[in-house]
Amino acid sequence: MSLVVAKFGGTSVATPERVLSVAKRLVQRKRSGDKVVAVVSAMGKTTDDLIALANQVNTNPPAREMDTLLSTGELVSMAMVAMAIHSQGEEAISLSGRQVGLVTNDVHGKAKIREIHAERIKEALEEDKIVIVAGFQGIDANGDVTTLGRGGSDTTAVAIAAGIHADVCEIYTDVDGVYSADPRVAPKAQKIDVISYEEMLEMAAAGAGVLHKRCVEFARKYGVTIHCRSSFNDEPGTLVKEYESHMEKALVTGVAHDSSEAKFTIRDVPDTEGIAATVFGALADANISVDMIIQNISEDGHADISFTSPKADINRTREVMEAIVEKTGAAEFVVAEDIAKVSIVGAGMKAAPGVAAKMFRTLADAGINLSLITTSDIRTSVVIPGDKGPEAVRALHTAFGLDGDDVFEETQLSAEELAAKMAKGR
Amino acid sequence: MSLVVAKFGGTSVATPERVLSVAKRLVQRKRSGDKVVAVVSAMGKTTDDLIALANQVNTNPPAREMDTLLSTGELVSMAMVAMAIHSQGEEAISLSGRQVGLVTNDVHGKAKIREIHAERIKEALEEDKIVIVAGFQGIDANGDVTTLGRGGSDTTAVAIAAGIHADVCEIYTDVDGVYSADPRVAPKAQKIDVISYEEMLEMAAAGAGVLHKRCVEFARKYGVTIHCRSSFNDEPGTLVKEYESHMEKALVTGVAHDSSEAKFTIRDVPDTEGIAATVFGALADANISVDMIIQNISEDGHADISFTSPKADINRTREVMEAIVEKTGAAEFVVAEDIAKVSIVGAGMKAAPGVAAKMFRTLADAGINLSLITTSDIRTSVVIPGDKGPEAVRALHTAFGLDGDDVFEETQLSAEELAAKMAKGR
Repeated sequence: MSLVVAKFGGTSVATPERVLSVAKRLVQRKRSGDKVVAVVSAMGKTTDDLIALANQVNTNPPAREMDTLLSTGELVSMAMVAMAIHSQGEEAISLSGRQVGLVTNDVHGKAKIREIHAERIKEALEEDKIVIVAGFQGIDANGDVTTLGRGGSDTTAVAIAAGIHADVCEIYTDVDGVYSADPRVAPKAQKIDVISYEEMLEMAAAGAGVLHKRCVEFARKYGVTIHCRSSFNDEPGTLVKEYESHMEKALVTGVAHDSSEAKFTIRDVPDTEGIAATVFGALADANISVDMIIQNISEDGHADISFTSPKADINRTREVMEAIVEKTGAAEFVVAEDIAKVSIVGAGMKAAPGVAAKMFRTLADAGINLSLITTSDIRTSVVIPGDKGPEAVRALHTAFGLDGDDVFEETQLSAEELAAKMAKGR
Repeated sequence: MSLVVAKFGGTSVATPERVLSVAKRLVQRKRSGDKVVAVVSAMGKTTDDLIALANQVNTNPPAREMDTLLSTGELVSMAMVAMAIHSQGEEAISLSGRQVGLVTNDVHGKAKIREIHAERIKEALEEDKIVIVAGFQGIDANGDVTTLGRGGSDTTAVAIAAGIHADVCEIYTDVDGVYSADPRVAPKAQKIDVISYEEMLEMAAAGAGVLHKRCVEFARKYGVTIHCRSSFNDEPGTLVKEYESHMEKALVTGVAHDSSEAKFTIRDVPDTEGIAATVFGALADANISVDMIIQNISEDGHADISFTSPKADINRTREVMEAIVEKTGAAEFVVAEDIAKVSIVGAGMKAAPGVAAKMFRTLADAGINLSLITTSDIRTSVVIPGDKGPEAVRALHTAFGLDGDDVFEETQLSAEELAAKMAKGR
């Protein structure tokens, strides 16, 4: 018998038919002897619909009211799943963020979990019920509803798994695990069976979108094992847990890429003390997140500063940079939108200094220029021309011995085609 | 300065445009110096849509989950109204049934209010906010969401008005008050300015649909003044309150009619002790509500029992009656569907024994036969042929001196036309 937390995203509960299919899966799981807690997101596009509804009465709605509004999406889906389980002949009880005692700070829209009082879940499990919990939501000290922001439902699931000491937190998604690279780009990518928290965090930071960094951080902090798996089949997926590499393990676990960022360079900034603080302070004030940062100081006392930040924020970033050029007397700033960030991630890199060099050599051999390089303990990232992204991923995947025998036949599968293919149990 | 509770039904908040119009009304009210609490129903047909959604996964969903599901409708509308108020430049806060401390018993789907802890409303009012409360919902002692059943939002409004000692509970609706008869039937019907709780209860019981009996009972118990008024204009509507008739007041306050009931008669029941208990016990067990009851005992020891009950339950009622005929050895039962119940209501009737006689005479003069008669302190109801309903209402309205100078030109106005006409401020 296992104690399992299972999280289902909006796509998995998008229609009454899919709700029934999730219910059947949970019932089957319970009948096989497990105790089951499910965490659910809002059905399909409900959250987007509610945001659109709100915007019709207020284009800048107060965050407290927005949280109350959005939280109804998960209340609907938890009740629906509980009802569907009853229709399959098992007992179920739905519990809101408030009812599971998920207490957060009061930062509406991106609240952080402070504590969880899981008594009610435990009681219900002892009464032999399947427990359905609303993801994404909690309450603050005033009893007001809060939401957890991006990746909120995954984080709810991990927090509950920690709170009830579950054996595993299963995150059901439309792919069947974490891959050594995006299989749509690298057809020889292989599913990773086990990955450490640290590697998964670096993969997430490098653009691998399967799990949110935040829920992985939470899992690491509380030692929760995550099982990332497909909602379309029963195949095992990827385990994310405390994990020591074996001696024979590959140096590199995965190759990630990310085309969502642009590169900004501000040239010939007079190199006064605190210039980096000025630039990145201004960006932080504008709530623009910055990923890679490089500063070169020339001999004449001028500096070039480059960084990457989301393309989505490009207009705001331009405004901030124009003001900084004016203020600092820099020569100019330039923007490169057509870039890709490619990263290799692996705990084995720590003890093997030649890994980065091998990465650069591989890309050079493929005729790919690097414009920025950053490294951490277990990740090396480079910025290259945007159109070279897929080629770089494949070259690195092969060079680091990650290629499998199983090959995706098409490199340009849509997300849905990919899911369908995976559902067939490849 | 007044302390006002204002309740808006689903039609009043059916679209974002109407939500904005309710918000503007509340903002205007606050700026005129009042403290304002609004109670809102779910937007438009939301509740029906949620019931349909639930039925797609379970045709007999558990009541606890159904309540959680349905309660989201009011959560959405309260957040929407609060957001809309912010967009008009005033502060507002939405509060769920739980957040206003509305505690009920645990009878899901038709919970009864036990207590209300209005501290949070009072605090918010002191902070100069407009308070928006979700109607129709509460929580039980376990912290589970309950709903109050039919007329629930009106009852929420009255309960909150009682809890915060409001000066008035305004119920906004699509007609502009309580009329001396349905103006669609009796074109000379007049709006009643003030009516006592007792009379309003009898009017509601007799089929006048403006206010639910339950909320009027609640208002009477706690001495809450209800102001039933139009959401389309600013004209005063009808006050429902403790009210002593003046000397010169008419004997009859209003004429009500109701075509939603059928008449059942069971004939030649052997008149054993407890036969009425058998019949009405069986109906109660089947959860069929019974309105008028008449029993005649003939000299040979057999009885005829007649009663009226909702046409909506007619099939179940037939089944119950068939079983009773079998069990008691009665001769037969007959059903009359084409009937109308017409009632006169007035506190003045208590001290004037001739009122009922005048009613019967008026109907006889109009050639209308009576098949059942029941009386209470302040109401006399008769059952007549269904097609005679409108004629009977008009004849009684005239006979008891209720006709006004203002005349509705069309007797067959639709509800919407009626509302539009009233909105013009007639």
